[in-house]
Amino acid sequence: MTAPYVRTIPERRPEGHVPKAPRWSLAFEAPVSLVTADYLAIQLPTDGTDEAELFLELARQSSDGPDAWELLTCTDEAGAVNLVQVSYWLDPSAHARWLRSSKLGRWYAGLNPAAITFGAWHETVQVPPDRLETIASKPGHVFGLGRAPGALMRHTTTNGYYGAARDRFPVSAVDPLEPAEPHVRRTRPVNSAKRRLRAECGHNTVVIRSGQLWESATGDQLDDYVNELQPKLLAGMRHLVDHADSEGTLSLRITTNLDKETLQPRRETSVYAHFASLEHLEHWAKTHQTHARIYAHAIRKQQEYGDDRSVVTWHEVFVLPRTAAFEYVNCHPGTGILPFAPTVMGVE
Amino acid sequence: MTAPYVRTIPERRPEGHVPKAPRWSLAFEAPVSLVTADYLAIQLPTDGTDEAELFLELARQSSDGPDAWELLTCTDEAGAVNLVQVSYWLDPSAHARWLRSSKLGRWYAGLNPAAITFGAWHETVQVPPDRLETIASKPGHVFGLGRAPGALMRHTTTNGYYGAARDRFPVSAVDPLEPAEPHVRRTRPVNSAKRRLRAECGHNTVVIRSGQLWESATGDQLDDYVNELQPKLLAGMRHLVDHADSEGTLSLRITTNLDKETLQPRRETSVYAHFASLEHLEHWAKTHQTHARIYAHAIRKQQEYGDDRSVVTWHEVFVLPRTAAFEYVNCHPGTGILPFAPTVMGVE
Repeated sequence: MTAPYVRTIPERRPEGHVPKAPRWSLAFEAPVSLVTADYLAIQLPTDGTDEAELFLELARQSSDGPDAWELLTCTDEAGAVNLVQVSYWLDPSAHARWLRSSKLGRWYAGLNPAAITFGAWHETVQVPPDRLETIASKPGHVFGLGRAPGALMRHTTTNGYYGAARDRFPVSAVDPLEPAEPHVRRTRPVNSAKRRLRAECGHNTVVIRSGQLWESATGDQLDDYVNELQPKLLAGMRHLVDHADSEGTLSLRITTNLDKETLQPRRETSVYAHFASLEHLEHWAKTHQTHARIYAHAIRKQQEYGDDRSVVTWHEVFVLPRTAAFEYVNCHPGTGILPFAPTVMGVE
Repeated sequence: MTAPYVRTIPERRPEGHVPKAPRWSLAFEAPVSLVTADYLAIQLPTDGTDEAELFLELARQSSDGPDAWELLTCTDEAGAVNLVQVSYWLDPSAHARWLRSSKLGRWYAGLNPAAITFGAWHETVQVPPDRLETIASKPGHVFGLGRAPGALMRHTTTNGYYGAARDRFPVSAVDPLEPAEPHVRRTRPVNSAKRRLRAECGHNTVVIRSGQLWESATGDQLDDYVNELQPKLLAGMRHLVDHADSEGTLSLRITTNLDKETLQPRRETSVYAHFASLEHLEHWAKTHQTHARIYAHAIRKQQEYGDDRSVVTWHEVFVLPRTAAFEYVNCHPGTGILPFAPTVMGVE
């Protein structure tokens, strides 16, 4: 639900602002207490493992299941291939039941870190909806959490100015969402092999899933996406990874959606990333040329093609409360937030 | 904030119910995103420690402080004396800052479990306000979270029937608040000495602080409290501790408020306890004679003395989301939820 906060912090929206391009944002048919995005993944060794097929099979069979789910793949910092089930819930109790009783949840819980020859990780992102903001460039498509029944897209004019993303978080009306801890790389890589580790990020850590869909693009638009927009996106992401210490990047994975039946890559990608604070993300968006190029290109094409624009972009951003913790089972020490996590724990 | 949930689960309130006794419940002047109760404690060795004085001194000096705080003491299961600062926040970012930058927070973070001769523990209870329910027998007093500026007590008629506590949770309109995991005692005591441990409870674990204030009681009322109501309360608590496995009790501490200046005990106590589920707590309240005796006595005295009743009772109950975790530094293995926690982790 969107809280009717009594604003104590001014909006960033400039007086009389009219967005250059129309945008849509997620709403819910009925009030929701906590929204959940759950990333459960297997990290494959370079020489492969049969376990990948079991993972995919179990992902498909999950009972008492998520409101929506997708299958993603990414090649991570260390060159390892990861298969990821991202699932969404509007009901946190259904999510907890699923973790405990679904085939995939039981497989994951039962992994013996000392015995397996692959890695697995689990990152649950769960926040009250006032700590969520979303945007999409087209109303007819739904993405991420928006695929859950009960979610719907509404036209917004809170876009097209610096600070719009912040303004879209209802809680930003009363909370500057500042991080509680400095962003500092761990001095030594975590000893993560053969262990089940929890890693904790700080209060107000930001999680973004930022997506691109060009499945229906053809001709000029396909050409433009592949040769112009995608390289600009990748340059921006490379900058955020290469300058993780100054940009506040805790983790950044470039994922590709897989068809759930054929397991072939779709023309749909998303960047799943963690940042030390909303301010870090805003700083990059406001000051860095890699973002300016992405943004200008996307707006130009939107204006050029209007409603016929077949490349769709969207994102969902969550600002985590203090207790968010992620888990890594026999993963390499560069996985997820491990290189930056202020707190790491060994599960007994 | 209280969400205007679209009810999918019927209220427990019987048709036409009129409570036997008036009650008051907490509300907020302005919408709140997350409410926080933070218990930070030192567990004293039987031969004493000078650290207790430092703890008390730092608790008083906490800067960028809580909205409200109290000083409690309890003697725990193992006979150890604990000094507890319980603090409350309506702003979760202020809470995160306080943990990081207050004198007490820095003292706690800097404790070296291998070197200290005492124990310390930290249990943060943080939920959206729709996972909070409160009640008090008198409007003029404020308790617990209700002491925070911006909190206020409102008259309620959601009381005096089985299921009233559940009905007072706004989220119960759409969530049965069932536990995701069974309540099972750990087969072996946790190896907790000289270590900093995190312990996790399951989704929808319940935390209650249930208070009794008889500071202004004199004559008959004082006599009745000390000789009648208090023994009944203690019998009920003893039952919940002695039958922890069947009653779903994870932890139960009977605490006494200390005067912040003189450090003398006040005539104010509270039971701070964790239960595996709301249903466990309801089951005890509905079926066990120890609860029936407490309840009947309290109502009888309320009716006898009316507005002149000088013994005040209240409680606040939180239903935790999945990620709630508590920390124990060099504590004995019976501390807090350690005997029952489904997950225990060693902080590195």
